[in-house]
Amino acid sequence: MNSHIRFDAREGALHLLDQRKLPEVEADVVCVTPDDVIAALKTMVVRGAPAIGVTAAFGCALAARGAASEDAEAGRRRLEVDLDRIAEARPTAVNLRWAVERMRRAWREAESGGPLPLTEVAALFEREALALQWEDEALCRRLGRHGAALLHDGDTVLTHCNAGALATAGYGTALGVIRAAVEGGKHISVIADETRPFLQGARLTAWELARDGIPVTVACDNACAHLMSRGMVQAVVVGADRIAANGDTANKIGTLGVAILAGHFQVPFYVAAPLSTIDAATPDGAHIPIEERPAEEVTHMGARRITPQGVPVYNFAFDVTPAALISGIITEAGVLRAPYGEAIAKALGASGERQ
Amino acid sequence: MNSHIRFDAREGALHLLDQRKLPEVEADVVCVTPDDVIAALKTMVVRGAPAIGVTAAFGCALAARGAASEDAEAGRRRLEVDLDRIAEARPTAVNLRWAVERMRRAWREAESGGPLPLTEVAALFEREALALQWEDEALCRRLGRHGAALLHDGDTVLTHCNAGALATAGYGTALGVIRAAVEGGKHISVIADETRPFLQGARLTAWELARDGIPVTVACDNACAHLMSRGMVQAVVVGADRIAANGDTANKIGTLGVAILAGHFQVPFYVAAPLSTIDAATPDGAHIPIEERPAEEVTHMGARRITPQGVPVYNFAFDVTPAALISGIITEAGVLRAPYGEAIAKALGASGERQ
Repeated sequence: MNSHIRFDAREGALHLLDQRKLPEVEADVVCVTPDDVIAALKTMVVRGAPAIGVTAAFGCALAARGAASEDAEAGRRRLEVDLDRIAEARPTAVNLRWAVERMRRAWREAESGGPLPLTEVAALFEREALALQWEDEALCRRLGRHGAALLHDGDTVLTHCNAGALATAGYGTALGVIRAAVEGGKHISVIADETRPFLQGARLTAWELARDGIPVTVACDNACAHLMSRGMVQAVVVGADRIAANGDTANKIGTLGVAILAGHFQVPFYVAAPLSTIDAATPDGAHIPIEERPAEEVTHMGARRITPQGVPVYNFAFDVTPAALISGIITEAGVLRAPYGEAIAKALGASGERQ
Repeated sequence: MNSHIRFDAREGALHLLDQRKLPEVEADVVCVTPDDVIAALKTMVVRGAPAIGVTAAFGCALAARGAASEDAEAGRRRLEVDLDRIAEARPTAVNLRWAVERMRRAWREAESGGPLPLTEVAALFEREALALQWEDEALCRRLGRHGAALLHDGDTVLTHCNAGALATAGYGTALGVIRAAVEGGKHISVIADETRPFLQGARLTAWELARDGIPVTVACDNACAHLMSRGMVQAVVVGADRIAANGDTANKIGTLGVAILAGHFQVPFYVAAPLSTIDAATPDGAHIPIEERPAEEVTHMGARRITPQGVPVYNFAFDVTPAALISGIITEAGVLRAPYGEAIAKALGASGERQ
């Protein structure tokens, strides 16, 4: 598929496929200011940790373009503020902060010999964001190949939420594993949990797999145990929003339940995520902030109210799956296995050396 | 609450609260013919096995009124046909056939001395239906008192689907337990799983508890594990559609997952159901047929399509929770405990002796 995140340097515009409207409508939201990008992130025009990172990087480029129109000192202050605001658009995905930090680092390094005009910073950010986008897709393909070896011909793989092309620069993490297995000649079917309240599974995972011709069936989240009890699931592969240093993994609400059910039915449960999703500064899952999102996502379906007026709802966007429930963490550097503390430290060390 | 199934003998009309429109609209469907009642059952104006039984009984009374306007022989033939048609309005609910059979038995017994005018049969059916309604509510209150002893002051109880007043003549089974605990002076809060795809929890359980002033919060089905992991749930109470002789319990899809999660987090998991829900002829859960319902319940929300065209869905209406995951089965005769085979045989024996 064409990239769902497309930067047009001539227009100075970031075109984002509006994931809120899929699968019925394929339409772009066009961002020209950092505020446009922040709004798009907050309202989930784009979601999925790696895709959020790439979008934020292009947001930094737009911020630098905007700041370049002011005088130098004011422009630099405004750019700093805008980068902070972009980094805080959503709380849980570590990739957001990581992407903005990468922009800052590139900026600092480029200015080691002295300050640059902001137009040059803007050009630098654009190149850096494009590189990030390209790297993310290449990384997903490497990750996919590592994960594909874990799946067997004829397997039905259950996935939760959307860790696909739409959640990354392209190709996907969890769905990248499935794509790589299919490209490797294996017959893989997918069960997509619908993933309330935003329905990323029903709307997005089903849409992108169907476009690729990979057999996919949608089930309500609460059907997972029944499907596993009937032997209809051979493996679970999900993405991650943040992985702590000990392997505890934050991902879309409902992932923890799937992991416990997989354990109960002895179905392997894999997390597929780039090493950048691992936050070495977060010792364990208890230290991962869990975003609570607006009640309206649960109380309404489109215009229709489905809960009574005045009845509160819980709308935690994520949950944390303890490392002990994870059969393997599939990364671009290979499949990490328990004990995860050691495996992660080693993988991050090796990745740091390569940089 | 006023009964959601209300027979007006003067009008010759059965007023049914239209559960499809809750919680937004509180409107009755008024039935004056058996065909009106059959249509209401088929389209789920009323759902919940005991409520279906009571509705069917009043449908028999309307059928007898209609038949009384014809000459005696034709009227009796028409009434027999109408009773058959009511009994077949929905395929799975055993209470439906059971309620119509109870009407037939009353009719036969009343005519042991010779045929009665159909106006008298109609009056008999009305009395019998009212008795059934009253008995069902009284039974729920007994069941509720037994279950209430299992809940502690300050508990938050999670429930799935709607096993409440709306699913019975009134008061409810799972929600009857909660109501009885509250009436007994305990402070109980409820988490209602929204229960996709029909949203019985979000729409019905939330509505009836809010009307009773019992604190209720709605959560998407997939939030259950997260809420339990945070210690936010002290007990689970659910209803049942059929209980096998060994205690395996069929209930709304998603119940099995909740039971496994409750086991994982050491939260007690109770089933609340009248003894009539136990089917001694079904040895275990593997022998309970699982209804698959139309795909449209999953693919659409109101008019909006949420899955891509051409992508199939699973829509199993029920799942089976093995007896081993059940902490207790709350009935009108007390709380049954494992080993359930023995406890059930004993309870059914005692109940048979009392009859």
